[in-house]
Amino acid sequence: MNLELMGQKAKAAAYQLASLTAQQKNQLLMAIADKLDEKAADILQANQLDVADALEQQLSAALIDRLTLTVERLADIANDVRKVCQLSDPIGQVVDGGQLDSGLKIERRRVPLGVVAIIYEARPNVTIDVATLCLKTGNAAILRGGKETFRTNAQTVSVIQQALVQQGLPIEAVQAIEDPDRQWVSQLLKLDKYVDMLIPRGGAGLHKLCREQSTIPVITGGIGVCHLYIDEMMNTEQAINVVVNAKKQRPSACNSLETLLIHQAQLTAFLPDFIARMEQEGITLHVDSALLSHPAFSGREYAPVTDAAYRDEWLSLDLNVKAVESLVEAVEHIREYGTQHSDGILTENYHHAQVFVDQVDSAAVYVNASTRFTDGGQFGLGAEVAVSTQKLHARGPMGLEALTTYKWICWGQNTLRD
Amino acid sequence: MNLELMGQKAKAAAYQLASLTAQQKNQLLMAIADKLDEKAADILQANQLDVADALEQQLSAALIDRLTLTVERLADIANDVRKVCQLSDPIGQVVDGGQLDSGLKIERRRVPLGVVAIIYEARPNVTIDVATLCLKTGNAAILRGGKETFRTNAQTVSVIQQALVQQGLPIEAVQAIEDPDRQWVSQLLKLDKYVDMLIPRGGAGLHKLCREQSTIPVITGGIGVCHLYIDEMMNTEQAINVVVNAKKQRPSACNSLETLLIHQAQLTAFLPDFIARMEQEGITLHVDSALLSHPAFSGREYAPVTDAAYRDEWLSLDLNVKAVESLVEAVEHIREYGTQHSDGILTENYHHAQVFVDQVDSAAVYVNASTRFTDGGQFGLGAEVAVSTQKLHARGPMGLEALTTYKWICWGQNTLRD
Repeated sequence: MNLELMGQKAKAAAYQLASLTAQQKNQLLMAIADKLDEKAADILQANQLDVADALEQQLSAALIDRLTLTVERLADIANDVRKVCQLSDPIGQVVDGGQLDSGLKIERRRVPLGVVAIIYEARPNVTIDVATLCLKTGNAAILRGGKETFRTNAQTVSVIQQALVQQGLPIEAVQAIEDPDRQWVSQLLKLDKYVDMLIPRGGAGLHKLCREQSTIPVITGGIGVCHLYIDEMMNTEQAINVVVNAKKQRPSACNSLETLLIHQAQLTAFLPDFIARMEQEGITLHVDSALLSHPAFSGREYAPVTDAAYRDEWLSLDLNVKAVESLVEAVEHIREYGTQHSDGILTENYHHAQVFVDQVDSAAVYVNASTRFTDGGQFGLGAEVAVSTQKLHARGPMGLEALTTYKWICWGQNTLRD
Repeated sequence: MNLELMGQKAKAAAYQLASLTAQQKNQLLMAIADKLDEKAADILQANQLDVADALEQQLSAALIDRLTLTVERLADIANDVRKVCQLSDPIGQVVDGGQLDSGLKIERRRVPLGVVAIIYEARPNVTIDVATLCLKTGNAAILRGGKETFRTNAQTVSVIQQALVQQGLPIEAVQAIEDPDRQWVSQLLKLDKYVDMLIPRGGAGLHKLCREQSTIPVITGGIGVCHLYIDEMMNTEQAINVVVNAKKQRPSACNSLETLLIHQAQLTAFLPDFIARMEQEGITLHVDSALLSHPAFSGREYAPVTDAAYRDEWLSLDLNVKAVESLVEAVEHIREYGTQHSDGILTENYHHAQVFVDQVDSAAVYVNASTRFTDGGQFGLGAEVAVSTQKLHARGPMGLEALTTYKWICWGQNTLRD
């Protein structure tokens, strides 16, 4: 394998993809969806071998579930590709424009980024999802999947490449780094000559590696230490319902709740019902040491929350609970311990809602709602490449537009600058 | 000096700046402009010491001119600050929004980035320009200026800080790294915990250093190896006028012309007048070795262009000239040797103009115009922080909008996700 050559060919393919019409790109996606149905047996067989390995290596049940494909799941993936065809193509859109003082006519036109590299973990659907979103926006993709699904990924990439060839397009429009050796990741991170954007989709370690080592612009995100703050003016029952939804609707998601902050004036009214409901829902509380002495917690055993636990995702039915003296203290806690992903306030006070929204510096800020809405589908983007928690280029859920850039086009009549 | 502490204080100041109204920010800018007038003598005195040092070190006349302030130049800088007040404030603008299926009301609101760090070379105006654009958009700034203007920069930063204090704002909203030791730059590049965006404004070496070492998202750009391609269908005299403007109007600018590509069918008609005009304008030609044998070049001495010269900015009255066999070859040359800054075609053929615009992957693409228009002021942005030649976040001239990000705000009625 020669990554330099891979980059070079991806760039050449990207130039071809950039000039495709929306119709041509949709035809390609339909061919991929059909080919996925046609080759389902091969893909499922490869997946069974991956799953067998995972069982042998005694990986966690959650991980094995994530990497397992079934006939239904594969059909859903193919149908998702067909749905991407329905989305409007952002390429070619004129963002703004006009006429300059010199008479030069100017427009800002949306164009593909070029080559997008994605490093992701053991989710076989990501290969198809990400590759089709890149193709829809006229980008070439270099994929590096998790080693747990190498056989499945090889099959799905082969399906995409067959569809590319069938449509008369360069096979290098979608390439995968299939050798699990970590050296290829290190090399990929330095390929800025050819790769225009790098998206790591994985844990905090992968994001740190990319931020530190990559010479390609990186979109970091996907790590969500999300908070809800229960303000002093708030209905207890409704607050508890939102907390349960934010924690339990899908605990493994990055937008699920990790830490609940409660205004001290609410404690006596709120805690008894809250503790009972958490027990009933099977949610394990981790209680701030200063709060443990509250009578509502007496008679039970709770481990105090460590500073490190406030900074980490639980991704399980565990929840940190802390009392704060004020809205200001809640905002300060979120600034210090949050990951700028999704944070919310539950309040009946208009002014407090406005202050929270202004002062909490997160990709998504909620008033009286579950944090679970931070998602490309929910936000109406039609698709999601990743969730960014940095501030450049794209913030929060990234849809098709985040896979584009723009160029300035100037139409003159042999126009000179004075 | 403690950079960690500097970052921490900048972040704290940024939270305060983010909540200022447009009126408060404009009052601050007016105070800075007035203070610049008031302290003109101190600033000019410091600048004279910097210039004296530069003369002693026998720096180039061009560099010395660049770092020299005069009464008039300083007054212009102050007036530029007053002009920034007139620009509309992008902060708070709702980019888009609507109601989700769940009833949740969503809006995407423009907010400041937070803390912006700028590393720049010896131009004393950059300190004021960049600091005021950051303040106008509610960002804190950490500045690292060139060592040749350290005394001048110290004075201008002090003026800004006096205005901050006078307006009751944190002095750490604008901080400068005044110690010329390079170790501070290395430390600054790793300050991703506090700094949201890094803009290097300098040569290729500085950009490479930032791309390789920085853990902060970097905006690279400002290096312009710009091309014009004279198509087979083009009026000779008009083409020559555009070439002269693109090369000569301000040769030291990044958007000035470095390489002229000429369709071979044009050579006989074009070259004699072109060569004569270049001589008259004092422009030195560097001729591609394959083109040197053309009769129009006989009887004179020309150095052939090296591969390296095609990849570098001249920034002087020097121009590379090369013949190409086709539009395709011109596009390929620009892709290989260009810096994706500003490139143009001169043609009377509609179809060729469209193909060039589609296939040349540069921040600004021109048809029948000088490349010298790529500039925030010319493009109607009102100001320019830098010119980006990368594709993420901002491309081409960066105005106030490029100093912002957005947050998603969701307004609910205790809304739960299904």
